[in-house]
Amino acid sequence: MNRARRARAGRRPGGADTREEILVAARAVFAEHGYDRGTVRLVAATAAVDPALIYHYFDSKQQLFVAAMDLTWDWEALLPAIAEGPRHEMGERLVRTMLGLWEDPDVQPRFLGVVRAAVTDPGAAELVRALLTEGPIPILGRAIGTPDGGLRAMLAASHVMGLALLRYILRVEPLASADVETLVAIVGPTVDRYLTGSAPAR
Amino acid sequence: MNRARRARAGRRPGGADTREEILVAARAVFAEHGYDRGTVRLVAATAAVDPALIYHYFDSKQQLFVAAMDLTWDWEALLPAIAEGPRHEMGERLVRTMLGLWEDPDVQPRFLGVVRAAVTDPGAAELVRALLTEGPIPILGRAIGTPDGGLRAMLAASHVMGLALLRYILRVEPLASADVETLVAIVGPTVDRYLTGSAPAR
Repeated sequence: MNRARRARAGRRPGGADTREEILVAARAVFAEHGYDRGTVRLVAATAAVDPALIYHYFDSKQQLFVAAMDLTWDWEALLPAIAEGPRHEMGERLVRTMLGLWEDPDVQPRFLGVVRAAVTDPGAAELVRALLTEGPIPILGRAIGTPDGGLRAMLAASHVMGLALLRYILRVEPLASADVETLVAIVGPTVDRYLTGSAPAR
Repeated sequence: MNRARRARAGRRPGGADTREEILVAARAVFAEHGYDRGTVRLVAATAAVDPALIYHYFDSKQQLFVAAMDLTWDWEALLPAIAEGPRHEMGERLVRTMLGLWEDPDVQPRFLGVVRAAVTDPGAAELVRALLTEGPIPILGRAIGTPDGGLRAMLAASHVMGLALLRYILRVEPLASADVETLVAIVGPTVDRYLTGSAPAR
């Protein structure tokens, strides 16, 4: 979907290539220097363009970071994969979908970059906070349909993020080498308890 | 308990004060510069001692970091608070105990320092990995008593860490302002499902 969007954007004469070159440079700069020290000036130098041109395409450094990390694309495309199917298996589908992204060699470095930036840099933390509170998680919260639905959706997200932190960033065993379907089978119903708004089962 | 241990160590003439001064300096250096750039040389300069003296008290920079972050102390003291009481409320006690530590103004900066260091620095990640795989979590895993007990204990830990990440580091709402007992009531039974080794409840 992302590629398709890029291909469409490519029809805009001239501009798309420059925008794409800026994003490639930004990805390299943020990966090497982190968010804080990865300045717009440095991105401009790497892309061999004037810094003003970057602000022509992106309103702010945060927008540039989001675009470079490619976090805005396929949340909408992913939602049906989570929502469609038996309701009581939604947790499993959510965990399978999110772990699938983390396992993707094209996505994992970007997720790693975002988490690393968010944990150490207040600006990146602000941005991740916005992604979490304005993105698909509140939609999920409203779908749960209980007064604490928003809290439950965020708790489900916190479990998936903690799992990713231990498995992909700290690489802690036995989580790191567990296969995805084993994790889906154990974590899925746990997340499902949050999503279905069920009373705590003992 | 930690204070008591320090007091006992204080009987050793001279040494304990110097060791404590090194730890105070290390805490300040790691908090300001992070793990990677917080060198032993810098700690020595801050404590106004010779770097060799630091290696007299601590075998390595990692050991110094662990001691400065005070992560080795009260796990054993905490275990009874989690283990003692009705088995089906163990998850609630675990979540209450861990959130209690994160809420403690003396502990939170140290936890923050450790997570920040672990996410960005391979050496600190290695150290946190060791704390997670050799500390109280495998004990919990064996207590669960199922073949996948180790995995379940680490999944419970991953949920608590993810919750802390979103609540205390990224400060995402509605998690950040939820009161502790609300979280204990929702997250406790979820963690309990891992700890009691129960089959996934639908």
